[in-house]
Amino acid sequence: LPKLTYCLAIAVDEGLLFASDSRTNAGPDQLSTHTKMHVYGLDGARQIVLLSAGNVALTQAIVTRLRRDMEADFARTLAGVRDLLEAAEYVGEVSRDLQAKHGQGLAASGGSPEVTFILGGQIGTEQPGIFLIYPQGNYLSCSEHEPFLQIGEAKYGKPVLARIIRRETPLADATRCALVSMDSTMRSNATVGPPVELLVYRRDSLKIDSYASLGEDDPYVLETRAAWNQKIVEAFGKLPGFSWDGRTEVKTPIL
Amino acid sequence: LPKLTYCLAIAVDEGLLFASDSRTNAGPDQLSTHTKMHVYGLDGARQIVLLSAGNVALTQAIVTRLRRDMEADFARTLAGVRDLLEAAEYVGEVSRDLQAKHGQGLAASGGSPEVTFILGGQIGTEQPGIFLIYPQGNYLSCSEHEPFLQIGEAKYGKPVLARIIRRETPLADATRCALVSMDSTMRSNATVGPPVELLVYRRDSLKIDSYASLGEDDPYVLETRAAWNQKIVEAFGKLPGFSWDGRTEVKTPIL
Repeated sequence: LPKLTYCLAIAVDEGLLFASDSRTNAGPDQLSTHTKMHVYGLDGARQIVLLSAGNVALTQAIVTRLRRDMEADFARTLAGVRDLLEAAEYVGEVSRDLQAKHGQGLAASGGSPEVTFILGGQIGTEQPGIFLIYPQGNYLSCSEHEPFLQIGEAKYGKPVLARIIRRETPLADATRCALVSMDSTMRSNATVGPPVELLVYRRDSLKIDSYASLGEDDPYVLETRAAWNQKIVEAFGKLPGFSWDGRTEVKTPIL
Repeated sequence: LPKLTYCLAIAVDEGLLFASDSRTNAGPDQLSTHTKMHVYGLDGARQIVLLSAGNVALTQAIVTRLRRDMEADFARTLAGVRDLLEAAEYVGEVSRDLQAKHGQGLAASGGSPEVTFILGGQIGTEQPGIFLIYPQGNYLSCSEHEPFLQIGEAKYGKPVLARIIRRETPLADATRCALVSMDSTMRSNATVGPPVELLVYRRDSLKIDSYASLGEDDPYVLETRAAWNQKIVEAFGKLPGFSWDGRTEVKTPIL
């Protein structure tokens, strides 16, 4: 099954970086663009960012439910949860409920009834953080050694993140690295596509620092794509050559 | 499902490069190593290399059948087919037959009954080539623009191949690039592991040029891993920085 999405979040000492593609489809002839980044923020109090991968209609149902819970002034909403763990648990439960409700019908018609989320941000004085929320509703935070999370079509763009991103990486480098990772993925898989949304949250600011939506022709995206390709080719050219000297192994043929 | 394998073949003007990992398992506590590279060669007449991804027992059954067909002197064997297309068609049929025979039992016990192959080489005076053989028995050759094929856990190691490999790439560079691609994959996925087998076939030689099996501690593998990591980090450091100046978009929060 094509993944049709690539979203990632990076948690460094300076703060958080979120990135998401916008390609969605509802059948091979209904390619479209749709945001996969949802921001729940009250400046000075809390900022929560949600990135989604999976069934688009189900995602909308879940996001709508999250908003309605707030409008209904329920005790347990993204405006009320005490910390990010509680936020992740709450979103996981809403997601599981709605997947159970619509899942059977979707599966019967050949659609995938699953949605995976990344939830991150900061609530009050607690530490900023990022969590992966599985379709089953359970969740995990990122590792200390590789402080990033990915959902959707994650593999093409993982090696560069694993090589570059550490807790002490500056947010500016995390931003560039997210774009390189996103670009490698879009280059490899037509089901991941622009615009790319980027959002930066700075630790303890309790407000969104920066947001941008980068279209296909964004000059920075084009410049980075060309520069990275050239630098990879140059770097490859400087690798030590493989020498067959002294290697005398033989593979015995079967014929 | 974990893929448990990464194999690739590259077809450049100078000839062909084959690479395969050796990690297999038959359950989480039965990790083992096993060759996924099989050579059918008659020096001066034909060389055929087969790389496999998928169920290990089924692969063995297929490889055994290919050999027995030759021992039985059947008209249609890897020793007898007139060209690589016929070889791919023949291997695809044997694969499909044996998957059909064992598939139901394997699927019932939760195993995957599928095997995917890369077949490449040269027969007589025809062009060298590489083919991907699907579990269904159908096959395709590589594209002219990206003259390589991958099976198994292909995504982590694809971007570097797509950036470097062209028809005119020298075989020595193809060899290095295959190792970089393999190393990025092994670094990202524990189900792909050493030793890495490498085989070079030079156009029109009708014999295997070089073969090596590189263990975990192979000095060249270790040197390349460290050098590539350092060069990627350096290259990344030279990318243009992302500037938020003049970008005034705002993401409206839902709270």
